[in-house]
This record gives sequence, structure tokens and C-alpha cells, in this order.
Amino acid sequence: MALLCTTKYFARNIHRVILKRCSLAFCNGVISRSSRVMSLRTLAYDEEYDHPKMKTPVPGPRSEELMKDLSEIQQSNATKFFVDYDKCRGNYIVDADGNVMLDVYQQIASVPLGYNHPALIRAIHDPANVSTLVNRSALGILPPASFPQDLKDSLLSVAPPGLSEVTTMACGACSVENAMKAAMFRYKTRVRGDPNPTAEEMESCVMNQSPGSTSLSILSFKGGFHGRTFGALTATHSKPIHKVDLPAFDWPAASFPQLKYPLEENVRENTAEEQRCLDEVRELITKWNKAGKHVAGILVEPIQGEGGDRHASPEFFKGLQNIGKEYGAAFIVDEVQTGCLATGKFWAHEHWGLDEPPDIVTFAKKMCTGGFYCKSEFRPNVPFRIFNTWMGDPSKILLLREVIKVINEDNLAESTQNAGRALLNGLKDLEARYSSFLSNARGQGTYCAIDLPNVDSRNGMLTALRNNGIEIDGSGVNTIRFRPALIFTPRHAEIVLDKIDYLS
Amino acid sequence: MALLCTTKYFARNIHRVILKRCSLAFCNGVISRSSRVMSLRTLAYDEEYDHPKMKTPVPGPRSEELMKDLSEIQQSNATKFFVDYDKCRGNYIVDADGNVMLDVYQQIASVPLGYNHPALIRAIHDPANVSTLVNRSALGILPPASFPQDLKDSLLSVAPPGLSEVTTMACGACSVENAMKAAMFRYKTRVRGDPNPTAEEMESCVMNQSPGSTSLSILSFKGGFHGRTFGALTATHSKPIHKVDLPAFDWPAASFPQLKYPLEENVRENTAEEQRCLDEVRELITKWNKAGKHVAGILVEPIQGEGGDRHASPEFFKGLQNIGKEYGAAFIVDEVQTGCLATGKFWAHEHWGLDEPPDIVTFAKKMCTGGFYCKSEFRPNVPFRIFNTWMGDPSKILLLREVIKVINEDNLAESTQNAGRALLNGLKDLEARYSSFLSNARGQGTYCAIDLPNVDSRNGMLTALRNNGIEIDGSGVNTIRFRPALIFTPRHAEIVLDKIDYLS
Repeated sequence: MALLCTTKYFARNIHRVILKRCSLAFCNGVISRSSRVMSLRTLAYDEEYDHPKMKTPVPGPRSEELMKDLSEIQQSNATKFFVDYDKCRGNYIVDADGNVMLDVYQQIASVPLGYNHPALIRAIHDPANVSTLVNRSALGILPPASFPQDLKDSLLSVAPPGLSEVTTMACGACSVENAMKAAMFRYKTRVRGDPNPTAEEMESCVMNQSPGSTSLSILSFKGGFHGRTFGALTATHSKPIHKVDLPAFDWPAASFPQLKYPLEENVRENTAEEQRCLDEVRELITKWNKAGKHVAGILVEPIQGEGGDRHASPEFFKGLQNIGKEYGAAFIVDEVQTGCLATGKFWAHEHWGLDEPPDIVTFAKKMCTGGFYCKSEFRPNVPFRIFNTWMGDPSKILLLREVIKVINEDNLAESTQNAGRALLNGLKDLEARYSSFLSNARGQGTYCAIDLPNVDSRNGMLTALRNNGIEIDGSGVNTIRFRPALIFTPRHAEIVLDKIDYLS
Repeated sequence: MALLCTTKYFARNIHRVILKRCSLAFCNGVISRSSRVMSLRTLAYDEEYDHPKMKTPVPGPRSEELMKDLSEIQQSNATKFFVDYDKCRGNYIVDADGNVMLDVYQQIASVPLGYNHPALIRAIHDPANVSTLVNRSALGILPPASFPQDLKDSLLSVAPPGLSEVTTMACGACSVENAMKAAMFRYKTRVRGDPNPTAEEMESCVMNQSPGSTSLSILSFKGGFHGRTFGALTATHSKPIHKVDLPAFDWPAASFPQLKYPLEENVRENTAEEQRCLDEVRELITKWNKAGKHVAGILVEPIQGEGGDRHASPEFFKGLQNIGKEYGAAFIVDEVQTGCLATGKFWAHEHWGLDEPPDIVTFAKKMCTGGFYCKSEFRPNVPFRIFNTWMGDPSKILLLREVIKVINEDNLAESTQNAGRALLNGLKDLEARYSSFLSNARGQGTYCAIDLPNVDSRNGMLTALRNNGIEIDGSGVNTIRFRPALIFTPRHAEIVLDKIDYLS
């Protein structure tokens, strides 16, 4: 497994070699220039690697040394290996021991354009961007003069159809926390018939007393993951280690459909399962409302990520939206992991054909900045109800703007759909050939997964893949999850499929 | 008030003018070069402005236009004005209408070195930093090879004496949330006699059930502010609008001392007041522990910021630390606003002369990154208990490293102490001269405040100051707070004191 790495790329220096290459060439890892307009793409970067090249097992000796260093400073046992980010290119991650791995996990699904993308390097070098990079403004009180236009050019240009409000936050958990708050403000406004709290509510809330402090709740789903701060963590139900020893609010959690794959061959059974879950949602809301812990929002992932890549049908989500309307609970779609083209559409909920948009949509990860979109009725009536010092980070909005430009100019929507099809078809083919070992190949876009018999065989496969040059990870108990960047192509899918084939 | 602005600075372009100037010249706003080593300071920047220069009332017409734009996108009524960050320099902020204001609030106390500091611009331009700026790693699993050394060169080089563990987070609220979690893990480990939860605890917590989900609590203080996510917000008790209509945990909140100023003239009365508060802390912990909602941590700001710049003595904090030890509750000092030299020492708690460090110290704002330091016994036994996708941001650690270099090279500890003395002495002088209008001048370092008779006179003064070229803000009900950058000097103090004098 330990191959010698002699790639010429290592000898080059990304910051010195100034080459004209178009982004498409970069994405495809080929040397030839594209015929597309290149004048905008004069950048310092290098081509992608051709294929994984391994020198040591992972983690290698240099990573092991660094782990000792880091373990003197913090809990660092989750570290897989240390990375030489200067040498990473596109879909390829390079570790501190010089191992070149094809990365189909991309920093927990958080990298949109792969490593060292020329467009982002250009943005960093652009003199017009320097002051945004060094002056982090308190966006809620002193935004840059360009802020409204920056939002239009970035977040609003890819807003979920029908949603024109957006609020930025620094990370995914804060996005979810504040989305839940927006749902509660709206719920309370409706019940009170007035957005303005009473004098008694204002006075009592300061010491966490009723009626100002409420017993409002958010309904979430078993197996769901929404973050690790106290509110988001209450709604998270994937792994015990995230939650144990901590307090949580008394909020309801419903069953998420346990569907049989392939979905198209198990329609009748899956429909019944989804109906069971929808009935449970209705029962829980009724029960919680009766107990005075009114459900202000239904919080759901389009595909449960951390919980094991569990899918549900458009009809299930339409059903949730309808229940939300019926009970006055906001329909909050958590697209932190599924958003930004991961499923082949910019937002996963666009696959559902909803008659109207979700009430609130959260984002982070590939979007570079956290935040949430919402309908205008979810805007707080006064400032400082949704607020903090930074309210996100203008430099991340700047990066997102470049990401969106590349997505549009390089038509990454189409190319990532092609890559997703190649990946899923390949996984289905492997499943057919190794049916006792691989099962439930599933996915949307490149957001794909496949199951192994149990946790041990899954973990064994992850380790073997990593040592064979594939950076990848699991979800749920026995699932392998694919979360490549948007520049992942059928050629990259072929490489990872070949490795799984070899190891199955 | 509306002065014509003809400053030559506006004609220049920060990104084109390459000048050799030392940072000290920049800080002092003078043209003359310092005799200090300048070879490291070849940078693109311009000098600071000499004084405020106003062209319009604030917000001016351009800001008003932009507010209309932004209000179509989000709740934006907290916006004071829009900023032309390219034109800001050092202590001076420049708005979209060309008004040049001396900024003694610095983005809610979050800017360490003022605007467009040459050292930070240099860091952005440095080719060695490009890949850190474009590749945001998931620090908890795939840190850069330089990460241990980066932490040593930045966060650990300024760690509170006695604390050698540090964990990074993306924002202040997340820092507090995770600090509270660390306190709870430690508390539960001690009670259980084992860091590892039982099988029953692991199983029950997933659905928020006991015994895995606990009733642990955090004691906080009336008037305290710790953030706006559900856990941090439960511990926040400053303004109703932050909390109303939302649920909160049933956690205790004690009185924070209401001291009389000047502190040195009211020792006997203040000592009694602090003892009353310490007794209350003890009573509340006893009560909550008896109710099975054991207090795992005492969370306190060294100076209540948002709550009105309320101080307490070193003896009070020593008392809190002792109570924490007695009851096994972590002593958590929230230095998000007081940290990074704001009070003249790097950490405000260094003024207290503690025999041993606090158990946990949180930070954000001027530190560029969020996070917390802790004693090694607060390190979780296994990974993923304190975790999220980004775990902070390597690019902010990079900026912090530069900030610390400048603090050391330019001896900003001493200069900010001098500036703080000049500011506080000046405020005391004004208080003496306008004793029916100004009261309770107080402060540590440049973290200063003064009271006005009531909320209306305070707000009137803030507006008048802004229209006279001072960007400043309030805290509590009737307080004006000063939160300048670390490059604030006695000369800047003089300007703001003159303006208050003029308006008093």
C-alpha cells in the first residue's frame, strides 16, 4: 500500500508559479487549456494530481509526531492526520507525510471548490478585497457600504426560490439556534396577536421566569443532527457522545422514516412508513401543545447526514410542511450539509416540488458563512432579538461570492449532477456484485452513501480506503458517506469506485 | 457640526501607496518615522487622520439610502451607519458619507489594532498565508501541520498564567456554550467517579431522557451578558429584548455587586455589598443542588459589560473561586469583552492576584477567534464531546498571531495603560466639573465608563458625540462605555474628552 510518491507537483510552489489556466482544467485535473474565456483566470496555482499516491500508512510518522504535540494542548483524538494545505490541489488532500489522497469527504462536507482553487486565491490577492479581509465589521451595527450589494451578489443570488430575507451567522450551530429563535418569535407574535411583548413579559424574562420566558419547543427527529450548542443539541439525536451528561430542553422528537432501498422498488412499504412518521409528528405536537409546551417549529434535514444518510420522499416533507401550517409551527429545513449543490440542486428541498418555500432554511459548511433564509413574517419586529457582535464575517461572504461565480461560469450544477450519477451508478453496480457485503446504495447528486454489514466492517473499510489513498468517512452506524467538492467529476468517481471494488 | 472634509487622505489609495512606516507612527497618527526597526514594516497603508472631520449628521444621506436597501433583506434597524472600510485608519472610522469619526467603540470592542493595520495587511499579502486564507480546515479532524506551532505562537503565548489547554471556536456565544459543557462533563465525571458514562446514560440521553440527560445548571449573575444562543442566553440577564419569548433552562442567577464609586472611597459599604452577593451565591448553589439541579459552574464577567460597566473587587472574585472549589463548581471567567489587554493586563482576571488560575477562561472579539482556555482536568475524556465542523478558523489564528506580535513589538501593554490612565483621569475631571450631569467615572485600562442622569440624557449624549465625530456606545441603562482599540493613545483620549466637555 505504501507507494513511492515522485510526483512533479511537489517540486512546485503554488505561490510562485503564475500560470494562465482555466478553472475547468483545474477541476478536471488535465493539463490542456479550455477554450473558455481565460482572461479572468490569471492565477497562481498548480494542476490537480492525477491519482492518489501513498508513501506511508495514514496517519504517517510525521502526523503521529504532530499528534503528540497537539495532544499536549487539547483533546485531539479525533485528528485523522495533519495536512499540508499548501500542497493540496482540487479534489486531492496531501498529508504531512506526503501522502496524496483523493478527498471525497472534504472537511466534513464543508469545502465547495476543493483545495487552493484559483478563483479563491485570486480573491485573496485582489487589492480590492484587502480591507474586507483585515477589518472584520460588526455587521449588525456597522456594515460596509457594499453590504447590501454583497448580499445580493452572494447569498441572495442563490436564495431558495421564494425566500428573500437572509441573516448571516458565524457557524452552523448558531445558524440553527437563531433559526429556532426566529420561529419562536413568530409563534409568540401570532399567539399574542402582537409582536411586542407585554410589560410583564419583558420584566419576567430577565430572570428566566414566565410569562416572559416561555415553554415553547421545537420538534426534531430521531437520528437528526443540528449542532452541539444547547438548543441545537436538544434537537440532535444521532450519537450519544454528543449529548450525554448535559441538560436538554423538553422538546419532542419524532421518528424519521426508515426507508427501504432502492426507493423506487419499495414504494408501498415506504409510503406506509412515512405515513406512520407523519402521524407521530401530529401526535407529538398535539401532546406537547396540550402540555403548554407549544411546538413553534419542525426542524428537519432533507437527508439525515450524521444519522446515517437516511432519505425520505418529497411527499413526506410536503406532509411536514402541511402539518406545520396546520399547527402554526414553522417548517425549518436544515440545509447546513445538504445545501450548496451537494444534492445536484442548489438546495436539497428544491427536489420536493413544494408549492411554497419552507419558512426557514439554514446553511453553513460549503456556503463559507453560516446563516439562514426566512420568509418576511419571520423577521423580528425590532433589532437585537437576532443579533451578536460579528453576525457572520464579511470575508466569508466575499469567498462565497467567488464560489458562486465559479459555480455559474463552470456550470458546476451540471458537472456535479453528472459526477453524482456516475458515483451512484457505480455504487449500485458494486452493491449488485458484492451483495453480501454492500447494500443500500443511495444518494442525490454527489451526496451518496452505501452500507456495510456492521460497524466493524464499515470502520475497516474506511481505514483500508484511507491507506489506499481515499479520504472518506462514515455516518450512522454502518454507513460510508461521500461528500466531495463540487469539482468532483466522473473520473474521480471512477477512482474511488475502483478502490472500493478492490477492497470488497 | 457639519464640517467640510478636505482631508488629503481621501485622495489616496491604501492598496497602491507603498510606504515604509513603522506601526508606532501609525498608532500615533504622526507623519514622522520612528527610530525603531522598520525593515519588517514595508507595507501598503496610509497614516491615521489627525482628528474627526464631519460632513453630514450621522447617519448621512448615503447611509440612509443603503439602510433602505438593507432593510429589504433583513432586520437592519440596529445599523448606525454604513462604513467605507477602505478609508478607515487606525482609531478612525469613515462612513459612507465621508464623515471621519474617532472610534472609541471599535465594532463592539472587537477590533484589537484599529482599522487597516499594516501588520494585518502584510499578513494578508504574505504568500505563505494564502493557503490558510482559502482552505478553511475542519480543525478537529484535519488540522494543518503547523497547527500545534500556530497555537503556541498565538493563543498559548498569551494564555492566562497556569492554563495550558486551549480549544478554538467560531464565535463568543459558542465559546461560552462549550465552556459550560466542559464544566458539566467535569462535574459529572467527579460525581460518577468515572469519565465514562454508563450504558444507561448513553442510551437515555439520545432522547433527552435522564439519567443521560442531566439537570446540571450554571450559576450566572443579574446584569451579566454571555451570548444569545440558548445556553449562553439562559445565563444572560442584561436586557429583556435578548431573552423575551424564548425558553430558558432553570438555572440560578445571583446578584452582582452594586458598588459605589469611586471604589477607594466606599470600601466598607462595597465590602458589605460583595459579601451579600457571595452569601447569595452560596445560598443559590445549596438550593439548586438540593433540588437535584446541581450547579456545575459559576460563570462571571470580570466587569459586566453589556450590563452597565459594573465592577467588583478582587476579593469578590476570590470569594467566587473559593465557593466554586467548595461546591465542585467550575469557576468560569468570561473574558470575551475584557480579554486581550482591554483592561491594561492581557486578561482582566490577572488584576485579582488569584492563587491559582480560573478553571475556564472564554475569549473572542479582540482575540479574532473564539475559544476557551481550561485546566487539564476539564479536557473531555474522549473526542467529539466538544466538537463541531470548523472548530474556529485557522485564518483568524493567523491574524491573532500578527496582533500579538504587534502588541509585543510596539509594547501596547504599556501604551494602552497610559491611554487608559489619561482617559480615566480625564473622565474623573469631567465628573468633578459637571457633577450634576456626569457620575461614576470608572475603568480599568481603556475599559472605561461614565454615567449620565438617565437613559434619555445618555442617548442624547451618544447621538451628539456621534454627530461631533466620536463613534461610541452605551451599556446598561444610563452608561457610556469606552472600548477603544489597543492603539488608542492619550492624544485620542484628549479628543474624546474635549468633545464630552463641549457637550456637557
